[in-house]
Amino acid sequence: MFRTLKRLLIGAPLPNQSLVREKLPVWKALAIFSSDALSSVAYGPEQIIAVLTAAGAALYGFTAPIAIAILVLLVIVSISYAQVARANPGGGGSYSVAKKNLGETVALVAAASLFIDYTLTVAVSISSGTDAIISAFPLLVPYRTAIDLGVLFGLLMLINLRGVRESSTVFVFPTYGFIFGILILVAAGVYQALAGREAFLPPASMKFAWDGFTLFAILRAFASGCSSMTGVEAISNGVTMFQPPEVENARKTTFIMALILGLMFGGITFLYMRYHLLPQANQTMLSQLAFAILGHNWSYYYIQFTTMLILYLAANTAYNGLPPLLSLLARDGYMPRYLAARGDRLVFSNGIVLLSIVAAMFILAYYGNTGHLISLYALGVFLSFTIAQTGMVIHWRRERGTGWQIRALINGIGAVTTAIVVIIIAVTKFIYGAWLVAVAIPLLIAMFRKIYRHYQDMREQLRLPRESYGGGSRRHPAGRNLVVVPVAGVNRVVENTLAYARLISSEIIALYVGVDEESSREVREKWQRWDPGVELIVRYSPYRTILEPIVDFVNQLREKRQPGDFITILIPEFETRRWWHRLLHNQTGWFLRTYFIFHQDVVVSVVPFHLQK
Amino acid sequence: MFRTLKRLLIGAPLPNQSLVREKLPVWKALAIFSSDALSSVAYGPEQIIAVLTAAGAALYGFTAPIAIAILVLLVIVSISYAQVARANPGGGGSYSVAKKNLGETVALVAAASLFIDYTLTVAVSISSGTDAIISAFPLLVPYRTAIDLGVLFGLLMLINLRGVRESSTVFVFPTYGFIFGILILVAAGVYQALAGREAFLPPASMKFAWDGFTLFAILRAFASGCSSMTGVEAISNGVTMFQPPEVENARKTTFIMALILGLMFGGITFLYMRYHLLPQANQTMLSQLAFAILGHNWSYYYIQFTTMLILYLAANTAYNGLPPLLSLLARDGYMPRYLAARGDRLVFSNGIVLLSIVAAMFILAYYGNTGHLISLYALGVFLSFTIAQTGMVIHWRRERGTGWQIRALINGIGAVTTAIVVIIIAVTKFIYGAWLVAVAIPLLIAMFRKIYRHYQDMREQLRLPRESYGGGSRRHPAGRNLVVVPVAGVNRVVENTLAYARLISSEIIALYVGVDEESSREVREKWQRWDPGVELIVRYSPYRTILEPIVDFVNQLREKRQPGDFITILIPEFETRRWWHRLLHNQTGWFLRTYFIFHQDVVVSVVPFHLQK
Repeated sequence: MFRTLKRLLIGAPLPNQSLVREKLPVWKALAIFSSDALSSVAYGPEQIIAVLTAAGAALYGFTAPIAIAILVLLVIVSISYAQVARANPGGGGSYSVAKKNLGETVALVAAASLFIDYTLTVAVSISSGTDAIISAFPLLVPYRTAIDLGVLFGLLMLINLRGVRESSTVFVFPTYGFIFGILILVAAGVYQALAGREAFLPPASMKFAWDGFTLFAILRAFASGCSSMTGVEAISNGVTMFQPPEVENARKTTFIMALILGLMFGGITFLYMRYHLLPQANQTMLSQLAFAILGHNWSYYYIQFTTMLILYLAANTAYNGLPPLLSLLARDGYMPRYLAARGDRLVFSNGIVLLSIVAAMFILAYYGNTGHLISLYALGVFLSFTIAQTGMVIHWRRERGTGWQIRALINGIGAVTTAIVVIIIAVTKFIYGAWLVAVAIPLLIAMFRKIYRHYQDMREQLRLPRESYGGGSRRHPAGRNLVVVPVAGVNRVVENTLAYARLISSEIIALYVGVDEESSREVREKWQRWDPGVELIVRYSPYRTILEPIVDFVNQLREKRQPGDFITILIPEFETRRWWHRLLHNQTGWFLRTYFIFHQDVVVSVVPFHLQK
Repeated sequence: MFRTLKRLLIGAPLPNQSLVREKLPVWKALAIFSSDALSSVAYGPEQIIAVLTAAGAALYGFTAPIAIAILVLLVIVSISYAQVARANPGGGGSYSVAKKNLGETVALVAAASLFIDYTLTVAVSISSGTDAIISAFPLLVPYRTAIDLGVLFGLLMLINLRGVRESSTVFVFPTYGFIFGILILVAAGVYQALAGREAFLPPASMKFAWDGFTLFAILRAFASGCSSMTGVEAISNGVTMFQPPEVENARKTTFIMALILGLMFGGITFLYMRYHLLPQANQTMLSQLAFAILGHNWSYYYIQFTTMLILYLAANTAYNGLPPLLSLLARDGYMPRYLAARGDRLVFSNGIVLLSIVAAMFILAYYGNTGHLISLYALGVFLSFTIAQTGMVIHWRRERGTGWQIRALINGIGAVTTAIVVIIIAVTKFIYGAWLVAVAIPLLIAMFRKIYRHYQDMREQLRLPRESYGGGSRRHPAGRNLVVVPVAGVNRVVENTLAYARLISSEIIALYVGVDEESSREVREKWQRWDPGVELIVRYSPYRTILEPIVDFVNQLREKRQPGDFITILIPEFETRRWWHRLLHNQTGWFLRTYFIFHQDVVVSVVPFHLQK
């Protein structure tokens, strides 16, 4: 039942051979990897203005310089990341860069910040995508969170469990649809602006006192705007998923993406200012802009719809980024092993589920409020930017290939700039949520280390000593096998179990726990009449519990045990034919089994007796 | 951890010996058993007026005759039930009566209706108790359902899991407090009425057309009023819980209860009419009455508070009634066995939990709306009344003791009257919810029978054939034991498991499932170097699933199996030291174990290897 449902939802399992097929051509990769960066123009520029105008319109005019600063930053970062892709065809981005060049600790910092970044990407993109559609259909406002979660689990998680190739085909159109729409929108807007058809009044004159607050506000606006650049790193983390030549294609894609992003970001920000738009509740500024330029017709809905789609698709980027990273971490022993295993459909299913759950927690925690989520955002991103760039500098110095100085310089500039941004974000957004990230990162690192430690301990404890090899194990002393059979009475299940017991040992004890005198007596008599050739020991349990007396009995046996001896608890269990029949029986068998396996150093055997009707 | 919490909440376990101590003196039994009947004056009279005035005040005047009819009914029913107690000291009320005298089917009808009745008692009493406190503190209105569930699980369930004796001590005061308060209220009200201090105008004149609708409304009002009599049977179901002489004490208690109930019901109804009160939302009529007579001072709050307490205590009556009934049903094989077992505290813990869950479902389904819940109520009650009375008539005829005719006559009258009431309720309240009961009863009966069937089938299948006795089992052919050890590699867990395998059999096969070529090759080589003297078979699993290849392998073995042979799956499992460590490992061991135990006719052995750190 569950199995068929699973098949229906995520399709039939794929064999290992088809793994190689899961590769993406550039035009598809662009759609998948760039959606995160591109879609952020839907909230990035708005965040700048939102912060600037939070305390009145006075600082509105600073939107322009901030936007330019961000565009410069974009150029630097994308160039640097093109080099990351080249240097680390293995993917994994800043984590693997840091691991190679900066050592464990820094690598874990990168991993932690990437983890937070990706999960937040999902949360932010989904909630922002929902904003887009809610702007068009205000009726949906009350269902914001429900929509978010529906998209998260019902759409993204399933599509990714099916496998990335299918998702890419599904997801190519929205990206190009969005790019097309926005470029048209910008073109039309710019034309109208130049043609002088002014929809609104020009910005109010800028009179303000230049003080600390002003500076702080401006920097914070810049920090918020930086959220537009999240996702630039996505490509370098997924180099492995490109069609060969992987590296070349990855770099090409990086530049195409940066170009489009720059155009859209610049254009939209310009038009916001030109039309002097202001943030509103339940109505995104992009929606206002489209409304102002295109009017209330199908083209407006086209913009809103493609915006929603690409934002949901952006969330999908994280699904292409985090699970592979988690699998790297798992392989290195910093995360649970099973995150490294490929599921039925050759994707890292466990990582996909984990990502979905964490993102859902963020969405629920902030009721899908994009603004609040963005306050947490970007810090992690730029932290990993910095680490990746610094790592690259060291990488080039070590390699000292032709023209390594230039490469090192480029990444050096990238490292310094992004480092400054990190500081700006951390300072200006600390009280607005960045503190949470500042707390989470060390916690995650501690967790990574604890997990690593556990796996190490385990490896030691499981390793065979040298003398065991070459047949050494065979020379271990063969001890006795004391078999204890807890019985609930005299019946065929017990008979069957004893038959097995005779096969595996000559020292068998049947143990009956009576909760009252008469039942104990009855069983003893019946046992004598049956006379199966096995001693029956009866223990009386005044508190009507079965477990304790059995445990006590076993503990007594263990004291008498010699090295090499085993104690076997042989549990007679009948298995009902229909699932609901199981509800009609107390689960003593299951209970004993579980308890002894987890808590006692004894072998637990279940001899199932399957009922026929 | 869980254990200590449990101890904290429900106390230390009690030994069997202390079972006898759990007996109640009359004054305590009255508090426990009568609370249901007495508390119903808090909603019974209100329901009459609510129905009568549903279509305008015209029928208001019929409150009096209806109230009188109900009082007469009360006398008849309580006298009859005093006899039930005498005839069935074993308790179990109408179920055991019917079982003795009317056969299985009727008994199951009784059981089903009692089940519904008890669960509804809990739902109705709790929601009505919450009404009482909400009337006094309207601020609580939005938290109605939350309060209901809190009381249900946090208070009633826990206290009853602790054991009835403690609950009785806790619960004696509210009952007497309520009785005292209401009698004072009635006295004061009657005095004011006689002294002619009229708080309100006398009822509006009664002009109405005597038609079918009128009759229907009146009968329905009567039907709703009958909810005041629910709980009269409680005592006869719990005879066993009285101090000896049980029967005498039970009968005495029945009469005392009937007397008090009659006084309160009559008085309150009279005063409702005298003050011409009308139902209001979020303000019970009893609260209105107390307000009108006592004014807004501490005495008003005393009434509301004690009303709330006794209603919650009334819910508790069901906890003394249903679990024992369920244990009877379980012992007869109509309900799961474990409902018959006494828990740590010598109470029927499973029955208590079951009751709580079903009641919670009713409350949630109706958002704790007392009116709606009462529409379902009373049908089940009077159905079981009728059955009990009919059963008694037959009982007396059979016994033919001294003056059996009189006894038979009394119960005969009871049977006929309650039967008429059943018809009235079924007809008048059908569309208002009674239909649900009409559907549920046959379903429950079908379930009882299905369960009974299953236990029978099982008994047959488990019974030992005669030839097994007298050592016959020993002469069964001793077959071979084929041991299969699924291994994940070469380590000490496997070494330990093979050591055990050698003890229990000479035919051992180690099975490795490789998800890719190289790992398979590695393991095979390592195994050869290790050379444990056990053959290793490697199966390649292209779909990366471990289970299927093992199952296939086992199935092949099963075909070669001779009678008497066993196949043993020996699962090497390491147990982590800290619970969270378990999250770091895939649960293949657990998974294999569970699958084979449930689905395959093979012995499943787990050889646990406990990690030290």
